[in-house]
Amino acid sequence: MQQEMSFLKLLNVPKIRDIKINSDFWNRYINLIKEVVVPYQWDILNDKVDGVEKSSAIRNFKIAAGLEQGDFYGMVFQDSDVYKWLEAASYVLESHYDEELDRKINEVIDLIEKAQWDDGYINTYFTIKEPQNRWTNLQECHELYCAGHLIEAAVAYYNATGNDRLLNIAKKFVDHINSIFGPEEGKLKGYPGHQEIELALIKLYEVTKEEGYLNLARYFIEERGKDPYYFDLEWEKRGRTEHWPGLIRNFGREYAQTHLPVRKQREAVGHAVRATYMYSAMADIARITKDEELLDTCKALFKDIVTRKMYITGGIGASAYAESFSFEYDLPNDRAYAETCASVGLIFFAHRMFLIEQSSHYYDIIEQTLYNNIIASMSLDGRSYFYVNPLEVVPRACEKRHDTQHVKVPRQRWFGCACCPPNVARLLSSIGKYVYAHSANELYVNLYISNEYELNMNGDEVKIYINSEYPFGDNVFIKIDTKKPVYFDLKLRIPKWCESFKVYINDREEGKIVKEKGYIVLSRIWNGNDEILLKLTTLPKKIRSHPRVRDNIGKITIMKGPILYCLEEADNGPNLHELFISKDSKLELKFEPEILNGLYVIYADGFRIDEEDFGDELYRDEYEYKLLPVKLKFIPYYAWANRGKGEMRVWISEIR
Amino acid sequence: MQQEMSFLKLLNVPKIRDIKINSDFWNRYINLIKEVVVPYQWDILNDKVDGVEKSSAIRNFKIAAGLEQGDFYGMVFQDSDVYKWLEAASYVLESHYDEELDRKINEVIDLIEKAQWDDGYINTYFTIKEPQNRWTNLQECHELYCAGHLIEAAVAYYNATGNDRLLNIAKKFVDHINSIFGPEEGKLKGYPGHQEIELALIKLYEVTKEEGYLNLARYFIEERGKDPYYFDLEWEKRGRTEHWPGLIRNFGREYAQTHLPVRKQREAVGHAVRATYMYSAMADIARITKDEELLDTCKALFKDIVTRKMYITGGIGASAYAESFSFEYDLPNDRAYAETCASVGLIFFAHRMFLIEQSSHYYDIIEQTLYNNIIASMSLDGRSYFYVNPLEVVPRACEKRHDTQHVKVPRQRWFGCACCPPNVARLLSSIGKYVYAHSANELYVNLYISNEYELNMNGDEVKIYINSEYPFGDNVFIKIDTKKPVYFDLKLRIPKWCESFKVYINDREEGKIVKEKGYIVLSRIWNGNDEILLKLTTLPKKIRSHPRVRDNIGKITIMKGPILYCLEEADNGPNLHELFISKDSKLELKFEPEILNGLYVIYADGFRIDEEDFGDELYRDEYEYKLLPVKLKFIPYYAWANRGKGEMRVWISEIR
Repeated sequence: MQQEMSFLKLLNVPKIRDIKINSDFWNRYINLIKEVVVPYQWDILNDKVDGVEKSSAIRNFKIAAGLEQGDFYGMVFQDSDVYKWLEAASYVLESHYDEELDRKINEVIDLIEKAQWDDGYINTYFTIKEPQNRWTNLQECHELYCAGHLIEAAVAYYNATGNDRLLNIAKKFVDHINSIFGPEEGKLKGYPGHQEIELALIKLYEVTKEEGYLNLARYFIEERGKDPYYFDLEWEKRGRTEHWPGLIRNFGREYAQTHLPVRKQREAVGHAVRATYMYSAMADIARITKDEELLDTCKALFKDIVTRKMYITGGIGASAYAESFSFEYDLPNDRAYAETCASVGLIFFAHRMFLIEQSSHYYDIIEQTLYNNIIASMSLDGRSYFYVNPLEVVPRACEKRHDTQHVKVPRQRWFGCACCPPNVARLLSSIGKYVYAHSANELYVNLYISNEYELNMNGDEVKIYINSEYPFGDNVFIKIDTKKPVYFDLKLRIPKWCESFKVYINDREEGKIVKEKGYIVLSRIWNGNDEILLKLTTLPKKIRSHPRVRDNIGKITIMKGPILYCLEEADNGPNLHELFISKDSKLELKFEPEILNGLYVIYADGFRIDEEDFGDELYRDEYEYKLLPVKLKFIPYYAWANRGKGEMRVWISEIR
Repeated sequence: MQQEMSFLKLLNVPKIRDIKINSDFWNRYINLIKEVVVPYQWDILNDKVDGVEKSSAIRNFKIAAGLEQGDFYGMVFQDSDVYKWLEAASYVLESHYDEELDRKINEVIDLIEKAQWDDGYINTYFTIKEPQNRWTNLQECHELYCAGHLIEAAVAYYNATGNDRLLNIAKKFVDHINSIFGPEEGKLKGYPGHQEIELALIKLYEVTKEEGYLNLARYFIEERGKDPYYFDLEWEKRGRTEHWPGLIRNFGREYAQTHLPVRKQREAVGHAVRATYMYSAMADIARITKDEELLDTCKALFKDIVTRKMYITGGIGASAYAESFSFEYDLPNDRAYAETCASVGLIFFAHRMFLIEQSSHYYDIIEQTLYNNIIASMSLDGRSYFYVNPLEVVPRACEKRHDTQHVKVPRQRWFGCACCPPNVARLLSSIGKYVYAHSANELYVNLYISNEYELNMNGDEVKIYINSEYPFGDNVFIKIDTKKPVYFDLKLRIPKWCESFKVYINDREEGKIVKEKGYIVLSRIWNGNDEILLKLTTLPKKIRSHPRVRDNIGKITIMKGPILYCLEEADNGPNLHELFISKDSKLELKFEPEILNGLYVIYADGFRIDEEDFGDELYRDEYEYKLLPVKLKFIPYYAWANRGKGEMRVWISEIR
């Protein structure tokens, strides 16, 4: 019953144009995206940056469009870098219109238009390299994946500007795809090797309301994992050739979640980005089609991730091999993959689950992922990125050990497979969409990011202002402006890391507070100009992981609200594993303006093993380490690796 | 001065024929080698065992000899399996002559003889596959490595029987090698990709006293690592072809210790088997040629291994990638490679160092390696083997994680690269050689393995009997029989794990005991029939590793004498990482006759984390694990993995 009701609730999320972020903390990132990342990535896509991996992504379009001579360069999915840039640039445009940027975008749209085949097909790799082999290798060759990113870009640009040029290009491509794939006789019974188009088609459906797009998304989802196995059929058909010989096909069926029909999947397995993109589409379909069974599958998968397979950073994918989930509670800190894109996907999935079931649990995961894995993936200057986000780094081991060589420290300027930086760019440039959600008579406040937002509640104009100290300070000031009295439920999320909270409305403390699925419900007539003070007390706390997590036994980490802390060599010297935190240590939060433009650091009492006392032997019997007292200095995880190459450690040994 | 003196000491080690092992513990292994391993490996070499990796090693010789038609099968170094079997079989023959076994050996010698080219060359791979390419790919193709094993087998068979058939074949081959390699103009300036022939040539020198063999060994050692780089020169010369494309050459120069001239090497790097075989030859050369500088290099390398790169099992090689050493103190337990052959090599190296410097330190390493890594590599029934010897196993992780997939549990019956089982066979069947060493007036007792041994001390016949309870019990009874009074120093090794010791001669406790480099020196006239009781008290002890070893922080392990202990799932349930040993727990040693035919187990008090109390969340704040008291049961590491597939753990968390 509860579930059916939730299906009935239609929630809107803010349009980027309608929300203005006023948070210094977040505007630093957003401005970096706008002023550094989007222009920098533009230059990279155009091969104008020296000393980074060559992209050629724009050039590929020029060649495919017949404007230049040359060969395709890059990954088979190189086009998606352009599309993800277009999406991010569109979000930037939506919040801050910029003629020059719009001109660049249209320059790219021109290219895409010219690269589009008469039948609607677009893909520069196949156009240039293997025009005769279109749609013959869905497992490895990402045509549908790239199409998905094109659709997402088109929807974003349309939403940003109302200009439907790119949207029409995308629709024409989708019409073509619809003519190739589907249950009808003569059509291919295929589905993408890398899921992405499914959630994109739903976006296209939501902006156009044309059911065909939804149905195509459902088709791809429902066909997946059926017998006979499509990827074997197409492989036989094309003469058993492989695009990446011995690679993708060797990863097994779990890799792209084709091991079981999608509805039968209860455990998150395989490539973590593919997984979360697919789960996101499944959640969308469950919501739109009110599909209880599919929702149940989504819930099982979400639970499997967040209670058994998620690093405390919000990182997922514990195995570099196949960039995949490994098995439950297997979360090694030094060998983590925790790809940035996978965390982006986890946020997508959690957000869609929230749109079905308004439980604050989903936003706890979003917040945790956002404040840690996501923003840590970018350097504080916006110019370098982590693809892999470890929780423990010993640079020597990354250089010397093959099994940690995927961990690159410090961040890289660009990647041969450049999926992550533009993925973060599109997430952060659209962060406003995640702050609120509202139905006709409810307004959910999900993230306490300072902002102002204009919305329409059941016909009435409402303006909400948030001025937030959270998560470093306690106070969140909320102002609700209405032109006339308006009745609605203001639902304020109480993050799970809150020690306690208090609510004051117009300076009067609320006594009896209704709490529902993690939200305070303030049901009242908002009377023109109400002021709310929400006090969210989050103390620095020691966290322990489930005992099944082998790598974290005897260790703790520290969080202050959603902010995870870590030790860095820059503050604590090398050999961080030789440090212990005292069980009874206080955790002293302190703002230090001089460190990395200002950070809330945490001090704690601890010890360092005296190496000299141990001596030169490798093993000693009946020996007790001599411990030297030290003051430990923790910095937020999001700020690590901004002071050169050095060790970092999230989980630290504890001692009585 | 000290060093020069040690060079002057000429030590003999027992001939296998002269020593009779009476230890039940060791005879179990020795009889397994004789009755199971050697016959079983014979069947495997002859492809008579179903369900194991095909060998074809004997068949390759038949084909090369022109006796059968067919193609070469197996690794490029497949011949070495035959030679290592021959060596082990010869040791078995030397201690227990067996006509049938001798007949089989001669059958193989016939084949080798027929496979030998007129010019002396022998290698079935090149004979069958690439006769035109002999000596063109030393880096990858193991011709000199195989030659080395042939020489070792030949020396072993000659020592066992006095029959010089195989020795002459080997000498003819070496004459050929001598005509190909060397400083003279027109000869190749090469050296083996996998070291082995160097130490073999020294054995050949020691049995023949022909200096040419020693000089060739020295040539290979001294040429190694020089510029220009031979492996690049030969690669260019053969048109840049690779036997293992993208593999060996990608491992870099450290892989085969060609990164520096050998004398300049101070750190143990690269492939651990190659390294220890080379260091063994270097030690031999240092000893024989009284080369101070080379000895100093050997000492630095030995120290680097045992104080920075050796697992407590005596396993070496912390990286599966390139089967190599990684860097100092990098000793992950679950990702250990610790190849059985590398530990065999470490024993070779340590033994040769002892022959130069009679310090008990070298025998502590030999004993530690022998009682742990070496015998653990074989199942108690002698029919299955570990190639990789981990110190921590979670079977699920070995199946699911790519970075631990090299860890195979339980033991395998045979391997495609079958180097380890015959290597253990040749070591254990010659174990008697390691028990004693003697000069004209000194008799070193190095391993307390029950035995009787006849030797000649400066012209006098001496018979020594040892009846040892060590290492499980304290008493070592030694009897010295001489026909007439004989003066010599009896030097009894005091293992480093001895808590205390006492010596009684003819029931009288020795008061003032002279100790020299870890040995008790009993200088006296042995008067026909003297009885010595050596009491070596070794208590079960908790061991801690150097704080730099990241994986062992907060953990201890247990040793009783040289015997390392571990926890197994069979005794302690799954999730061994959730167990803690109490800091103040007693370690109770107990003989349990019913477990695996009788084992000394150790009980300790500890705790298990109550998983249920933690609940379903992955992370909890300000939570303290609930600990349930348990009795921990440790078994000797050498006996692990004999009761089905399950977890195992050497290092266990400690709690106050």
